[in-house]
Amino acid sequence: MKIKVVRQILEWNENCHDELHKNFDDKKVLVINVMGSPGGGKTTFITRIIEVLRNEYKLGVIEGDLAGKIDAEKIAKMGIPVVQLNTEGACHIEAMSIKNIIPNFDLEDLDILIIENIGNLVCPAEFDIGEDLKIAMLSVPEGDDKVEKYPLMFSKADALIISKYDMKEYFDFDEERVINNTKAINKEATFFKVNSSNGEGIAEFLIWIRKYIKK
Amino acid sequence: MKIKVVRQILEWNENCHDELHKNFDDKKVLVINVMGSPGGGKTTFITRIIEVLRNEYKLGVIEGDLAGKIDAEKIAKMGIPVVQLNTEGACHIEAMSIKNIIPNFDLEDLDILIIENIGNLVCPAEFDIGEDLKIAMLSVPEGDDKVEKYPLMFSKADALIISKYDMKEYFDFDEERVINNTKAINKEATFFKVNSSNGEGIAEFLIWIRKYIKK
Repeated sequence: MKIKVVRQILEWNENCHDELHKNFDDKKVLVINVMGSPGGGKTTFITRIIEVLRNEYKLGVIEGDLAGKIDAEKIAKMGIPVVQLNTEGACHIEAMSIKNIIPNFDLEDLDILIIENIGNLVCPAEFDIGEDLKIAMLSVPEGDDKVEKYPLMFSKADALIISKYDMKEYFDFDEERVINNTKAINKEATFFKVNSSNGEGIAEFLIWIRKYIKK
Repeated sequence: MKIKVVRQILEWNENCHDELHKNFDDKKVLVINVMGSPGGGKTTFITRIIEVLRNEYKLGVIEGDLAGKIDAEKIAKMGIPVVQLNTEGACHIEAMSIKNIIPNFDLEDLDILIIENIGNLVCPAEFDIGEDLKIAMLSVPEGDDKVEKYPLMFSKADALIISKYDMKEYFDFDEERVINNTKAINKEATFFKVNSSNGEGIAEFLIWIRKYIKK
């Protein structure tokens, strides 16, 4: 059966990301934009890396959600400075929001700012929010066909983290399909396989991220 | 630690959904908009219900994806008329796209049109695309905090399907939290628990959906 393919077009707006990049470079703050589907494991991963990085670096976190402050509460409980950004329905974080939040942090005294974007495999990838590194997360239960279906996110990632890796035995998940399809559209990405619930694979990511510290 | 909450505002556009509703009512086509996160189990669920509904009704499917035609190929293999809508980066299906696609179906000879929206727990909920029923899907691996984080999707759902229900033993998933939080923002929603891989829970959904057939 022949499949008809119809196109829907959308335009995006410019924003103030250049100013943010300059500010973060001047203050030598490494900014990490963590993206992925809802429930892909972003927050658990972030709390895992904080546990180690906090011993060496000054950290700050911005938690993006449509509503509520569930994730910010988890970070605050660790004693890490955190701001909850509620987008009130919006599907991604915009640079302007980061600019508005920055005065809540002392950038002079910050080494790493971790931004957890809205759980969404589409829109966040479109927006430069002043980050140095885009971290894309794909959890095993989501399936191995996501690179073909949501190519932009994977094409822009500096690192692709395959999360909930311990679930591999319960799902038909071909990690080579994910990695090869990503490599086909992204020559620069580095790949990690992690299980944030027990910490497996976190050490490899930390070795990688340390190379980008600016201070 | 006190958490600062900052708001980001976004405006949405009007579209041509009224015209679609009238057309689908005139032709007595029940239109179902299936929404949920990437990898939440939408396509597998749709193929399961098609297996049964095809024996009684004339079906058509629109598959929404940013790119590719992986899901449309699965539906076409079943011999069901299907159109793949590629949004080319856009995070949701708009009514105008459905209007453009409709001429590919013979509405006079159609009982049910199933639309699989883009995998996204945010944006699709904002857009009326002419559907009679909004079906929201939340898979167990995504976690039980999603209603609080993505309230709009759950507030608008006519049915909430908890999918990959067989995974409950491997995840710390409190279904009462999901159901109670949904009920707090949505008095009308009907709840289903399904495992599309073996068909558990599908029969209950089919009893419900049959009530809405227009022909």
